[in-house]
Amino acid sequence: MSSTNSQVIRCKAAVAWEAGKPLVIEEVEVAPPQKMEVRVKILFTSLCHTDVYFWEAKGQTPLFPRIFGHEAGGIVESVGEGVTEVAPGDHVLPVFTGECKECRHCKSAESNMCDLLRINTDRGVMIGDGKSRFSKDGKPIYHFVGTSTFSEYTVVHVGCLAKINPAAPLDIVCVLSCGISTGRLPLISTRNVDEDDVAAEGARIAGASRIIGVDLNANRFNEAKKFGVTEFVNPKDHDKPIQEVLIGMTDGGVDRSIECTGNVSAMISAFECVHDGWGVAVLVGVPNKDDAFKTHPMNLLNERTLKGTFFGNYKPRTDIPVVVERYKEMGLELDKFITHRVPFSEINKAFDYMLRGESIRCIITMDD
Amino acid sequence: MSSTNSQVIRCKAAVAWEAGKPLVIEEVEVAPPQKMEVRVKILFTSLCHTDVYFWEAKGQTPLFPRIFGHEAGGIVESVGEGVTEVAPGDHVLPVFTGECKECRHCKSAESNMCDLLRINTDRGVMIGDGKSRFSKDGKPIYHFVGTSTFSEYTVVHVGCLAKINPAAPLDIVCVLSCGISTGRLPLISTRNVDEDDVAAEGARIAGASRIIGVDLNANRFNEAKKFGVTEFVNPKDHDKPIQEVLIGMTDGGVDRSIECTGNVSAMISAFECVHDGWGVAVLVGVPNKDDAFKTHPMNLLNERTLKGTFFGNYKPRTDIPVVVERYKEMGLELDKFITHRVPFSEINKAFDYMLRGESIRCIITMDD
Repeated sequence: MSSTNSQVIRCKAAVAWEAGKPLVIEEVEVAPPQKMEVRVKILFTSLCHTDVYFWEAKGQTPLFPRIFGHEAGGIVESVGEGVTEVAPGDHVLPVFTGECKECRHCKSAESNMCDLLRINTDRGVMIGDGKSRFSKDGKPIYHFVGTSTFSEYTVVHVGCLAKINPAAPLDIVCVLSCGISTGRLPLISTRNVDEDDVAAEGARIAGASRIIGVDLNANRFNEAKKFGVTEFVNPKDHDKPIQEVLIGMTDGGVDRSIECTGNVSAMISAFECVHDGWGVAVLVGVPNKDDAFKTHPMNLLNERTLKGTFFGNYKPRTDIPVVVERYKEMGLELDKFITHRVPFSEINKAFDYMLRGESIRCIITMDD
Repeated sequence: MSSTNSQVIRCKAAVAWEAGKPLVIEEVEVAPPQKMEVRVKILFTSLCHTDVYFWEAKGQTPLFPRIFGHEAGGIVESVGEGVTEVAPGDHVLPVFTGECKECRHCKSAESNMCDLLRINTDRGVMIGDGKSRFSKDGKPIYHFVGTSTFSEYTVVHVGCLAKINPAAPLDIVCVLSCGISTGRLPLISTRNVDEDDVAAEGARIAGASRIIGVDLNANRFNEAKKFGVTEFVNPKDHDKPIQEVLIGMTDGGVDRSIECTGNVSAMISAFECVHDGWGVAVLVGVPNKDDAFKTHPMNLLNERTLKGTFFGNYKPRTDIPVVVERYKEMGLELDKFITHRVPFSEINKAFDYMLRGESIRCIITMDD
């Protein structure tokens, strides 16, 4: 296929026509990138639980037809007006949350919650003109979190693209665009089935001598061992609250805890199981709208810290290229997360693997 | 008066015979210090709201007769077995919470919540043998938080003594033994009427350009200005929750908030008024037993941090001597906190000043 940067591209995309129904590979039109936008040829994408969550569209306003996908690696095909940071041929990872580099959040060393490009799961259009760049037979198809990587070509705001070293293996580092980030604490941004594994992997890298996995599913322990979990506790095996069990196991509480499920009871347990004096609980899992986090304030006064995080506190454009550059020396074993691979034509298999709980990451190869 | 380290000392003490009744200056006996204990001649003490709170004994198990007082400066008179860190003649500040230097908290760089000597307001005896060192006519008088500084002589566990530079003015630095500590955030340990002022003073030293005081009493603004408060908000003047008012005043929220009252609604407001992305709320005020801190977990996920503190996170023996040494170069103006002075014989006036809300700190001079 040939194209220029001002022309519509016709290519294959996996379209979700209805909530919960298998995706259909369709030929779609992808409009040229507009001001501050970039059109990217996707080479590899992977399925994340957040895609499944919004595809199922339970308890949400459904937005269909839609092209999902937000964890991917690709190459810049063309750029719109005002884009200077990337050029055709650059290797990039699209990211579901952005970095405008101009707002107070982007200028703050502490925040990655860009005012302009912060994740918005309800928006199905580009922020520049409120329109979609995808269509079929003249009818628009909605975007998903500004990335829509289940398409051979997609259009992304330049603020949502991490430009990475072209020597990095795109079929592996693509998982860094959402699922996996590391640092002082290993964190992940969205409701993923593998959040626990990322947390464990990060704790392993950080040198924790004991890593206690907590899960209602005992079968997960064997898999968790791969990521450094040394002990496993199933709340179902105990009559008392899990925080009391953990405090008993650790002579007063754990040093750090990470809550990955978004379940508010688990959040409270994760906070109350940290040691007084120095314990820090980090919340990663996204809660439901009506949840209330509730604890006795004395648990805080006794010098515990409670904090939340978003996308591992990474700034997408600034930090992700560094993580791509350094993940090996950091000791992050990305291969362990990639359990399956399918060609684009079999993308629905990736959904099946995830729904059956068999996969951590299934890489979808576009160029099949 | 002459004494040796193995003899009982007879001296004056202000005894609280009953809850809420004026203290009575009595001649009491002070037993010699036992193992790991130190007998201290108190030169200056000051009244803190915590003394008043336990003297009023509302909603607590009353423990009388008792000698209150926990903010003071004095000189070591004699030491018990095993004490090597201080010797007679040393200048010391007794502290209501201790540092054994051997437990996990003391060995942790992050904690000051010593397992052995952490504040215990219910205990009226020495931890070594479970007995009091004070008596009158052979009947014991209870201690208060291990310090009982409303006495010419008192006995304190060595772990609750900060040995300070003898050149420091004891009649001023005595207020550092409880009420005031500084650092990254200015914090105070207990339920004090001047917590707000300390918080403001610390923010001023830290260079905050805007310091917003929040109080239900509008009269406090003038006093607060002395400590750096630049704006004042009275929740009574607004129909909407104070956190919304503060968010509106600051384009999204404050960078740091400090809650000093212990009121759980104020704690929640203090947390919810910090900016997403980087805001940190610090809880200082001590809550009631049945309080519940409640917030939507998304407030945390949006990268806010909530933490509690105790005695400004200072380790009493390790850090307080350094604060005494450096308070002037830190820019901490201790004089501003000292609003009144009375001789020991008029100690009940200090209670009156505080109950009427007139004083911040009233220094009581023992040697009158």
